[in-house]
Formats: sequence, C-alpha cells, structure tokens
Amino acid sequence: MKLLRRSILMLGLGLTSFVASADTDTIKTRWADVKVDTVASGLNHPWGLAFLGDGRMLVTERAGNLRIVAADGSVGEPISGLPEIKVRGQGGLFDLRLSPNFSNDNLIYFSYSEPETAGSDITSTAVARARLENNKLHDVKVIFSQQPKVMGGRHYGGRLAFSANGDFLFIGLGDHGHRQDDVQKLDNHTGKLVRIHPDGSVPKSNPFVNQADAKPEIWSYGHRNIQGMDIQPTTGQLWTVEHGPQGGDEVNMPKAGLNYGWPVITHGEQYGGGEVGIGFKKDGMEQPIWHWTPSIAVSGVAFYQGSQFPQWQGNLLATGLKGQQVARLEVNGDHIIHQETLNLKRRIREVKVSPDGSIYLLTDEPKGAILRLSAVK
Amino acid sequence: MKLLRRSILMLGLGLTSFVASADTDTIKTRWADVKVDTVASGLNHPWGLAFLGDGRMLVTERAGNLRIVAADGSVGEPISGLPEIKVRGQGGLFDLRLSPNFSNDNLIYFSYSEPETAGSDITSTAVARARLENNKLHDVKVIFSQQPKVMGGRHYGGRLAFSANGDFLFIGLGDHGHRQDDVQKLDNHTGKLVRIHPDGSVPKSNPFVNQADAKPEIWSYGHRNIQGMDIQPTTGQLWTVEHGPQGGDEVNMPKAGLNYGWPVITHGEQYGGGEVGIGFKKDGMEQPIWHWTPSIAVSGVAFYQGSQFPQWQGNLLATGLKGQQVARLEVNGDHIIHQETLNLKRRIREVKVSPDGSIYLLTDEPKGAILRLSAVK
Repeated sequence: MKLLRRSILMLGLGLTSFVASADTDTIKTRWADVKVDTVASGLNHPWGLAFLGDGRMLVTERAGNLRIVAADGSVGEPISGLPEIKVRGQGGLFDLRLSPNFSNDNLIYFSYSEPETAGSDITSTAVARARLENNKLHDVKVIFSQQPKVMGGRHYGGRLAFSANGDFLFIGLGDHGHRQDDVQKLDNHTGKLVRIHPDGSVPKSNPFVNQADAKPEIWSYGHRNIQGMDIQPTTGQLWTVEHGPQGGDEVNMPKAGLNYGWPVITHGEQYGGGEVGIGFKKDGMEQPIWHWTPSIAVSGVAFYQGSQFPQWQGNLLATGLKGQQVARLEVNGDHIIHQETLNLKRRIREVKVSPDGSIYLLTDEPKGAILRLSAVK
Repeated sequence: MKLLRRSILMLGLGLTSFVASADTDTIKTRWADVKVDTVASGLNHPWGLAFLGDGRMLVTERAGNLRIVAADGSVGEPISGLPEIKVRGQGGLFDLRLSPNFSNDNLIYFSYSEPETAGSDITSTAVARARLENNKLHDVKVIFSQQPKVMGGRHYGGRLAFSANGDFLFIGLGDHGHRQDDVQKLDNHTGKLVRIHPDGSVPKSNPFVNQADAKPEIWSYGHRNIQGMDIQPTTGQLWTVEHGPQGGDEVNMPKAGLNYGWPVITHGEQYGGGEVGIGFKKDGMEQPIWHWTPSIAVSGVAFYQGSQFPQWQGNLLATGLKGQQVARLEVNGDHIIHQETLNLKRRIREVKVSPDGSIYLLTDEPKGAILRLSAVK
C-alpha cells in the first residue's frame, strides 16, 4: 500500500473543469434498487477504465486520449507520450490495464489502432506498455501488433485481460469486418484471441507454438470481434464476449487451441436476413456459453464481487451498446442459469467493479460519461 | 401401424358439439412467423394430452374427465371408468401418457388426486394404468400412490414421462405446499421425483432401494412442485421444470439420488419478500440448469423435433401459466444458451409436439382450449 500510494502521487493531476452532473436515477431490480449516478462526463467515447486505488481512475477515450479522472469526477488533461493512434471508424484508443505489479513498476498496458506508417489508413490492433509518471508516458514499447494490417476501420477487438497470476496478457481481436477468410486460418491474427507475456514474448505453453505457419501468439480462433474480457475470480478462467452479426452475440470461455466457429457457424444472421455460414453447429467448433439474439451489441464484461450487491456475487455483468443495458447473468460453473436486464437507456461500452463494490460504466457517446451503480440504502 | 390403427378404431368416438373456433393469430419470432390456431375449446382446465396417431388426441381435464378430441376439434363425451378423483384446489385429473406399447396393449397411464377414502379431503398424487377400449377404461390398476396423503389441495406435481426405452415411468411430485419438512427426508414421497416400472414395481437400480427407511421409488429429492417433464430425444436424459416461490422456477436434469435443494436453497423468495432457506447454494445440493426469476409459473415442457420449425431442433419449449408464454430455450449439452419468449396472452398448461411438427398447447382456463402453433408458409 505504501508503494501504491507513492505511485499515485507520482502520476500527477492536470485537472480540467469537467465535473459530474448531479443526475441520479433509480432502477428497480429483483434483488436491489440500483442508484445510477453520473460520476464524470464530457469524455469522447470512453472505452477503457482502471481504478488507481485512491478513488482516481485512468480512462481511455476512443478519440485517442488517456486521462485521469479524480474521485470528484474532474477530468484531467490528456496524458502525453502516447504513440500514433489512427482514429477512424471504430479505430482509436481502446482498452487499458494496470500492470499486475503497478504499485512497484507504474506500468500500464493499452491497445489501439496502429497505422502501418505515419498517417496511413492501413491499420491493425496493437498493444503497448509504458510507465506512467507525472501525467506522461515513458519508455513506450509496442509488445504486440496484429498481423496483417489492412485497409478498413472495423472489428478491431481491443480488449485486454491479465491472467490471475499476472504471467499472461490476453488480447481480444476481430476480423476487420472484411477479412473473414483469414479467421479460420492460423497464419495471421485476424479474428484471434492472443496470449503473450507482459513483456511481449510468446509463452512456450501456447497451443500453436510448434505448428509451422501458425502465429505462435494465438490462444484460440474463429472469433468475429471480441469486445469484453474478464477473469472469473473463483476459477481464474477467462471469459469473453463478442459481437455476432445482427444476432448471436456470444459469451465464451476460450480454451487453448479451440475454434469458436466464425464465420462458419453463428447464432446470428446476415444483415437484411438469411443464414450466415452453415448454421449453428459443427463438429470441432465450440458452442457459446450464452448468446443474445437479437444482438445487444455486447461490449464490456465484469464478474461482480463486492458488498454493495450481496445477491450478485459471481454474476457476470455484460454491457450493451445497441442494447443500452447491463445484462446480469447468473453463473453456475460454466453455465448461465438466469438473465436479468438493467435498462440504462444509453449505449454502454464498458463495466468495472470498483474497490467499494459499486459498478462503474462508460457510455459510448461523443460526450460520454462515467456512471456509477450503487445500492439504494 | 396396422395394430395402431386397429387400436384407434377400438377407442370409440362419442363426440359432442365442442368445435374449434376459427381464431387465428400470428406471433413474430426470430426464426419463424408462428401461426396460432384454436384446435378445440370448451375443455375444463385441460392438463395433459397425447396424440393417438391418426390426428385424434386424448386430453385430460383437471375437473376430472378424460376425453378424445377429434382432428377437427370435436370434443368427445367423457371416457368412463376412471377411479375416484378428488377435484379440489389444484387437485384433479392431471397428466396422461400412452403405453410405449400402446398399439399392442391399449394401455394408458394417468395421474390424479387420490382421496384416502371415498370423498375424503385427505389426498395425494396417484398414478393408475388402464386399458382404453370403446370410450371406457378397463382393468384400472393404481400403480403408485404418494405417501403420506395429507389434508390440503396444493403442489401435487403430477407430470409423467416414460424413459426412452419404455422400461421406466417417472412421476413428478410436489411438497403439498405445507409439508416442506418432509422434502429433505427420504421416508416419504413429498417433494420427490419417483421412478417405477410400468407395472408399478420398483426398479432394483433405483438409488435408495437398499437404504433403510427410504422410500425405494425415489429417484431424486428436494423438489418443490414438478410441473413439466420430457425426455431429451438425443440423449435419453429426463428434464423437468418446477415452480419456485415467487421466483426461481427451475429447469433441472434430475440424476439418481441427488438433492435439488428445496426448501433449503432456491433462487426464489418468500411471497411478500425476504429470503427462503439459506440462499442460492449449498454443497451437496444441485443448482438448476436454468431459472426464471421472477416466476413465469412454469408448467409443461417438450423438446422440439420436427419439420415445421427447422431452426428450433432440440430446443426445449416451456410453458408458463402466470407468464402466459412459451419460452423457447436453446440447449447445448446440459446448458441453456439462449431464451426467446413467445407471448401467448393466455395461461398455458402444457406443450406437446405433434407428429407433423406443429406444436399443441393447452390453456389453463375453465373453458380451456387446445392451440396449435405452426409456421406461416
């Protein structure tokens, strides 16, 4: 804790005048009345959030900025030192995670749309790490860069998650929207879930490290666009969510080397109607744990643990963009056994459980907000 | 087939003038537009249905009658020869199943509220078999009688299902509403799922046959009120649904000797609010495959197989009384991975898939109907 506090002081503040409005709303749910507060506002498509431990937060804006938001909702000036980020279409600055050893190393990890050369529209998803000090990034190092880079601005994936022991970093990727033929092949990172060490090296235990022509970073494949990831606290298992086409947004528990079926199988359908691929099922391809059909445009996920909502322990919270919701999914082992929908009436990009058990949401808007869900006492 | 046809001719008709109305409605769903026709009406709380193979159906009325309904919706005179049935509260005539060998033996099996002595209000759920011939039951034999019989008219269970090979008959029971202390004990049939041979004898492979003071018919325990049962065609596994208190209606796959938790654990709550038992989970007690909270008052279930709704193959259809719906549950292995709700706007008691792939529903009303769901061409 002493080290953590020192680190936080080192980050610097640089506050501006974005302060939370006093808007408060209440959502009635089965087990709790949920108060919705606006913590901060004026963020340009906020995408990722990390708690710094003293009430402050690090927040990414898809528009390409990384900011500190104070406990009172004050939004800081952009942190300097980011690499070049191509902000175009769905591309921009995506997720961030603190180093598992952040209190000692001050390192952060972030994902973004990386251009092939300065200014190029040919991009893919990259992950960099950097040391955060005095509102500035130092020693920025790109530890992963999705191959191939392609023209186009869709389906970047971009969500990050550290394994429970901190030894591995998972990176969720997408199919770029028009590179479906690559998704079932292993010689590229298109539509893959990738696992690397935090220094960017490839784990020897990855499933395809000894397979010629396979990218060694691949953990699992056949993904359309992974948008949310979290580690289940009780098991250490990674859970992911991804967008399906029109329908078939999925929850998966990706296992080493397995094929999650896109674009061959899906529970969704073509925009405008008609089947995608060959249908719902195929031998050798995994079924999802859960799917939303029609699509909610699922985005972030987080397992709930905390004292605010004692009945929700272990539930998986999943946010929806088009669905404008938090879906509360009750989990038993590797099953979903119940869903309750909290209607937020705003596009929600990400969900994080705060240290005090309240739940923070990011709204996907040009003047986006941080919302906080807490229990009505 | 020759034998089956002969059997059907032997059943006799005795038609009255209840004829289907021409009401037709359409429900839009993800994969099909569903036409809702009224096949027959004027049935007094119909509860169970079996297809006789030539378009005719056998239907139970909770009010205590068993009738043949012709393909054109004509409702026959009551079949005579039923044992005494106590029609009171939720009690009456419940489910029926044709013998797996019906085309040869003309036997039917039915469940009902059986009084202790003639006219008594002390009842429990019994199962009888009888030979159906010329609109009359012959050689009626009670093959199971739930012990103990108690005063009260609630939570009888009553649903029946034959195992895939026809060697076993499962009988779903309830807790009588006020005998919760018995449900976790094995010396009675309260809140149990029972398995017997079709002649009423106890299978030697039942889980508690060698346990002193345990009722040997018990297959599983800790059930509140089993209301629907069907065998999964692809696996032969029994699936059941039961009512929870206010919330926590459950889907289970009851396994031999296991404890399904009532009244110790439940996902429901006390009427008027407050927790039931100790909460959701306990070691040694099974979690449901799925639960509805708030309750839909789940009633019948059937696995879909057929040509009318090709996208629904293998789905579990579950009906709701209070929920006035058919819940279409997509199944993967022993998981539910998606739910779609078809709003019928009437209390639905039971669901059966007909030989032509259309879906028959019974409405729980004093002048109840048989509805048919088919695909809009």
